[in-house]
Amino acid sequence: MRTGVWLIGARGSVAVTSMFGALAVRAGLAEPIGCVLESPELHSDALPGIGELVFGGHDISSIPLGKKAAALAEAGIVPARLAPAVRDALLEIEQDVRPLPLRDTQAEVADAIGADLDDFRRRHQLDHVVVINVSNTEPAPRPHPAHADLDALRAALAGPEPVLPPSALAAYAALRAGCPYVEFTPSTGARLPALDALARSKRLPYAGHDGKTGETLVKSALAPMFALRNLKVRTWSGVNLLGGGDGASLAEPDANAAKSASKQRVLTETLGYAPQGDTRIDYVEDLDDFKTAWDLISFEGFLGTRMRMEFTWHGCDSALAAPLVLDLARLTAAAHRAGRTGPLTELAFFFKDPLGDVPHALVEQWQVLRAAVDALGPRGTAP
Amino acid sequence: MRTGVWLIGARGSVAVTSMFGALAVRAGLAEPIGCVLESPELHSDALPGIGELVFGGHDISSIPLGKKAAALAEAGIVPARLAPAVRDALLEIEQDVRPLPLRDTQAEVADAIGADLDDFRRRHQLDHVVVINVSNTEPAPRPHPAHADLDALRAALAGPEPVLPPSALAAYAALRAGCPYVEFTPSTGARLPALDALARSKRLPYAGHDGKTGETLVKSALAPMFALRNLKVRTWSGVNLLGGGDGASLAEPDANAAKSASKQRVLTETLGYAPQGDTRIDYVEDLDDFKTAWDLISFEGFLGTRMRMEFTWHGCDSALAAPLVLDLARLTAAAHRAGRTGPLTELAFFFKDPLGDVPHALVEQWQVLRAAVDALGPRGTAP
Amino acid sequence: MRTGVWLIGARGSVAVTSMFGALAVRAGLAEPIGCVLESPELHSDALPGIGELVFGGHDISSIPLGKKAAALAEAGIVPARLAPAVRDALLEIEQDVRPLPLRDTQAEVADAIGADLDDFRRRHQLDHVVVINVSNTEPAPRPHPAHADLDALRAALAGPEPVLPPSALAAYAALRAGCPYVEFTPSTGARLPALDALARSKRLPYAGHDGKTGETLVKSALAPMFALRNLKVRTWSGVNLLGGGDGASLAEPDANAAKSASKQRVLTETLGYAPQGDTRIDYVEDLDDFKTAWDLISFEGFLGTRMRMEFTWHGCDSALAAPLVLDLARLTAAAHRAGRTGPLTELAFFFKDPLGDVPHALVEQWQVLRAAVDALGPRGTAP
Amino acid sequence: MRTGVWLIGARGSVAVTSMFGALAVRAGLAEPIGCVLESPELHSDALPGIGELVFGGHDISSIPLGKKAAALAEAGIVPARLAPAVRDALLEIEQDVRPLPLRDTQAEVADAIGADLDDFRRRHQLDHVVVINVSNTEPAPRPHPAHADLDALRAALAGPEPVLPPSALAAYAALRAGCPYVEFTPSTGARLPALDALARSKRLPYAGHDGKTGETLVKSALAPMFALRNLKVRTWSGVNLLGGGDGASLAEPDANAAKSASKQRVLTETLGYAPQGDTRIDYVEDLDDFKTAWDLISFEGFLGTRMRMEFTWHGCDSALAAPLVLDLARLTAAAHRAGRTGPLTELAFFFKDPLGDVPHALVEQWQVLRAAVDALGPRGTAP
Repeated sequence: MRTGVWLIGARGSVAVTSMFGALAVRAGLAEPIGCVLESPELHSDALPGIGELVFGGHDISSIPLGKKAAALAEAGIVPARLAPAVRDALLEIEQDVRPLPLRDTQAEVADAIGADLDDFRRRHQLDHVVVINVSNTEPAPRPHPAHADLDALRAALAGPEPVLPPSALAAYAALRAGCPYVEFTPSTGARLPALDALARSKRLPYAGHDGKTGETLVKSALAPMFALRNLKVRTWSGVNLLGGGDGASLAEPDANAAKSASKQRVLTETLGYAPQGDTRIDYVEDLDDFKTAWDLISFEGFLGTRMRMEFTWHGCDSALAAPLVLDLARLTAAAHRAGRTGPLTELAFFFKDPLGDVPHALVEQWQVLRAAVDALGPRGTAP
Repeated sequence: MRTGVWLIGARGSVAVTSMFGALAVRAGLAEPIGCVLESPELHSDALPGIGELVFGGHDISSIPLGKKAAALAEAGIVPARLAPAVRDALLEIEQDVRPLPLRDTQAEVADAIGADLDDFRRRHQLDHVVVINVSNTEPAPRPHPAHADLDALRAALAGPEPVLPPSALAAYAALRAGCPYVEFTPSTGARLPALDALARSKRLPYAGHDGKTGETLVKSALAPMFALRNLKVRTWSGVNLLGGGDGASLAEPDANAAKSASKQRVLTETLGYAPQGDTRIDYVEDLDDFKTAWDLISFEGFLGTRMRMEFTWHGCDSALAAPLVLDLARLTAAAHRAGRTGPLTELAFFFKDPLGDVPHALVEQWQVLRAAVDALGPRGTAP
Repeated sequence: MRTGVWLIGARGSVAVTSMFGALAVRAGLAEPIGCVLESPELHSDALPGIGELVFGGHDISSIPLGKKAAALAEAGIVPARLAPAVRDALLEIEQDVRPLPLRDTQAEVADAIGADLDDFRRRHQLDHVVVINVSNTEPAPRPHPAHADLDALRAALAGPEPVLPPSALAAYAALRAGCPYVEFTPSTGARLPALDALARSKRLPYAGHDGKTGETLVKSALAPMFALRNLKVRTWSGVNLLGGGDGASLAEPDANAAKSASKQRVLTETLGYAPQGDTRIDYVEDLDDFKTAWDLISFEGFLGTRMRMEFTWHGCDSALAAPLVLDLARLTAAAHRAGRTGPLTELAFFFKDPLGDVPHALVEQWQVLRAAVDALGPRGTAP
Repeated sequence: MRTGVWLIGARGSVAVTSMFGALAVRAGLAEPIGCVLESPELHSDALPGIGELVFGGHDISSIPLGKKAAALAEAGIVPARLAPAVRDALLEIEQDVRPLPLRDTQAEVADAIGADLDDFRRRHQLDHVVVINVSNTEPAPRPHPAHADLDALRAALAGPEPVLPPSALAAYAALRAGCPYVEFTPSTGARLPALDALARSKRLPYAGHDGKTGETLVKSALAPMFALRNLKVRTWSGVNLLGGGDGASLAEPDANAAKSASKQRVLTETLGYAPQGDTRIDYVEDLDDFKTAWDLISFEGFLGTRMRMEFTWHGCDSALAAPLVLDLARLTAAAHRAGRTGPLTELAFFFKDPLGDVPHALVEQWQVLRAAVDALGPRGTAP
């Protein structure tokens, strides 16, 4: 099963770490640590292998992939010793990374994106191409009546005014071109009624939102503990300090608000009520891709006794995101092949703000995921 | 269903907090926060109510329950404003708390314990009496051949030398008297082949070990996160600072070793390997019952990138333990009534070092518990 | 030396904790822990005793002092067991707490404040009355040309428009009435050229700003460590979570900005440069007066090696502030008696944002303070 | 002023990081961050420059310096990009690193060490050679009567039994050879009456003990804060997790006890009493040279209100120690040149367990150091 992975934001840290890692794993130089599908309980022959993935993508930046990889190595995000081994393969991928098209109308941009996707599929003879957005977080978009109806949307896109935020436009173009779409950021992506209708009409699946890589991952592991123990969480307040490209874009109040809401959702869903406190995101350039999150949880136990818990998380965002990008590409391609259409709610395990009415406790999400992998096909034989 | 709860260590902090809380809940003065069985998903009419529990027990201490309750209120473990309301009821319980019997042989001690249990059951016309050990942690016992065989054990107990550690002797006496036994500490309790045989021959259930109240509770919520995400934990090192009675006893190197082993077990079972690092227990009198635990977790992600997490837990041990004691009393009584015999492996949710080959992820343990509660009988009607 | 302490915000947590504590110390029921002047190295007979302080003040609130004290006891800020012993004395102070005067012009308000101060001094035959602002933090005031000149200020105050923020108006009234003024909050207080001129013309001292009670206290102890070791601080980023009255007022963006700037000043002054990062203040009602602050410090050592430090501070703001209020009252009264006029720069030890060009390392500030106490007079004999 | 630095443990992490860094600074490739003497307030022409230092030493290991440097670069302790630039200079130093001599009696070992020192001095035409012990921590030595008297010591050393622990034997040999001695570890070094007598008779200075590089550095900055604020520290409890060579040796209970005592001394000296709690040292191989220390401080404020502070320190021991080794070499050489003899108590700033009756607050120690540097000679002209 030849599987293409088309990354929006292909020259960013997450994308290049994903490519770098897939190449290193293919060359036998690195273990697939952090790749959920490589744990023994989820390994399945119904999934394309990491080494079978073919990369391409769009970006507004023009920094060469090799130069970005060198910067990642310098920052300790990927190991410098592996850089020489993946250099040539990165240069090959460079041929499939295009500038994000600019046109007069969004309809024309969608056509241009679709042409790039067709070209990519044809040139590499791919069975499936999964489009994944790993670019910076957008501000929350302004509502537009055409978001609710596919015909209205088609008409509006032909007009001179932008109707869709960039992520939704990419989703529209991907689905039109027959490609499943995964939203790895908190941005809109395919989460509009018109795009859901498009996905169903094209019999395509889509997934999202917002890869669960750090503080929220911990929240989804800890919040169930308080819930199951019937302890009453009074305050859950956190701060995220991060540098890097996404840090700068999240420092914008609008993007920050979108992200923070996504990060608190797990609490309300798991606990059944909203504790006091917020999640702050502060940009600290110096920290680069190594994010530090600190959370204070104040809770009430038997007879009202007050207790506290704190945690600090020092994670490397790109190193945590990249293996999930590979997992999602493989799962979404296999789901496409298996005929799944519409929102892939079974992938909630991977997302801060998952699609559908799904469990928010990490272990339950994993159980749903395991069932979905089992349903894809036999585990131990070739597909 | 009139249910007796006989506490070994009845004048200690955990026991008196349990009694105080049950009385306050019965009087409608406190919410049953921290009582797992009071969450909507586990509520069942097949379980005795908190207000139906009747308390008694043994202790080597002779501090009056009322005085202990006052000390707990002074230390902020139970609310001072509720003390007047439970004073009379505590005085009544005082009638059922006996000095731990001293005799020449362990056989005679067991007889005396049994006589106290019979007396308690008769006086209060109880359907079931659950014996729960909440006394201080014992040093690991020396092995003895009679531990493996019930007949040999009976013979050995009649001799002049002690054969069983105090917790196992209590379990022996309880089972002989027809009472299910719950080991809430890391001590031996019923976990000996001879005692398992006794329980089965008497058609009684037993449960344990070591109530999961603090750091290990967090471990059982967090370790699955690393496992499910296929992240490689390199170091998991922790320190527990605690005062209080159990703090002093755990400062003994032997008891400390027993407890530490119990606390690391969840890691090996959940991760499938033992990371570097230990769990230290240090006695700091000043901290009293408010334990502070700190854990450092160092882990490896994609391409070997090193990351870290830390947490601090400021918990009140007695306030965390007491509602679990009530839960265990109710569950064990209901299991007895339902005819369950032998180890109650379905109660792993409550224990650091559970009996049987059971899941160690907290959410999975809870799912097992829910199934067990469901099996006890209907949820919404009177039993 | 009979010394009056007139508190602006006399019914707030800091004020009532100060009164409660002074009364408890006077009655021999509490040790003066946290009172800097009671350490052996600073004890001086030239200072009025804690027991000699006479309290009064203004407030816009009308909650009785006794009721406020009960609330503080309930919240664990003052010990409930001492409440009965200070009840009567608090009732006496009640006679000297007046509503903050309302008039048509600020000149008239100042006159009314002055009349209250004169009355207080006369009734209690006080040698000195020190006015201390412990009310909520104001937003940063709008500049006004009259701030720079005393004559212009006098003229402007007679007009219908407010010229001074409330704290500066209190300082103006205090100085006019012959009372030294201490600004314990980040608000303007006496820090205007016109008020400095007034203080000098009346031969009065004044002090401020912003009592150093928590996170900034730690910063002033830790920042010198990095400076003296020639380590390069890259990031110093913090968050303060607090409830209580001041928490709510600091949640206002303007007050928040004033406070945050005050909190970062110590870094720039001590390190000689401004590291990246900010100090956030978030209001979390549930935490009440118990503030939690968390700081991340990332620094560079030999050959650029990157290292980190974190700290968490769980402090009770009122319990930390109250003994400093008593210290400042005693020091300012003694300075007044000793003929000191203008800004008391020697009190930098007490403030986040001290007056004058002073050292910011805590130990150096203490050395300056000790020299100032020595200069007040003999240590071991009656003055 | 040509200054030799003879390192006991010359092939260890601290020694090689010191050499590597001095060479990089000399080549203009690195800033002397962490070198206290390079801060503007301490810079003095009376001190030898970093670039003027000439290195040699003893070690029982035979790992080549270049190989050790490569391992340090791999572990992120020194920057890999500087390795090529210092390779040749490290090879030169290799000529001056000798195996630690083995002989039949300690007197003969001392002679052999002395011969190596003489040879080093002669070959490089050095004005001063400072011997610094940076090898692993020894267990506390057994007392011996000859430790108290120089003549008795000389006699005993000629016997077949070892009389001195290795660090004291090195100090003895150094002083006999006319070299000042610095003890950078908690080991005995020159701290014996017989060796003090030897130093005075040879008119030589010596210094120590135990470089203050991490948790204790923070303690010496924070403990004065509590003392000066008259707050009562109830508990100060800490744990140090560390790998690396010293970690393994500190895991030995005897060495651990020596180190822990050294680490708590600052508290008793600064606070005037010993709070509850201990300092634990745990060996965790995985952490390598990057130590993590966590401390909990529980304290009492006004009216007994209980508060808490915690800190975590993630430091690289060798990167923190190496610049201090360079500082100490330069200061001790200058002190020797200036005629100082006996213990250099003015260097307390650098040590956990300083010689003499000295201040323990970091800022006061720095003030003493500054005065000592001033006394060495003019700041701005050539010596």
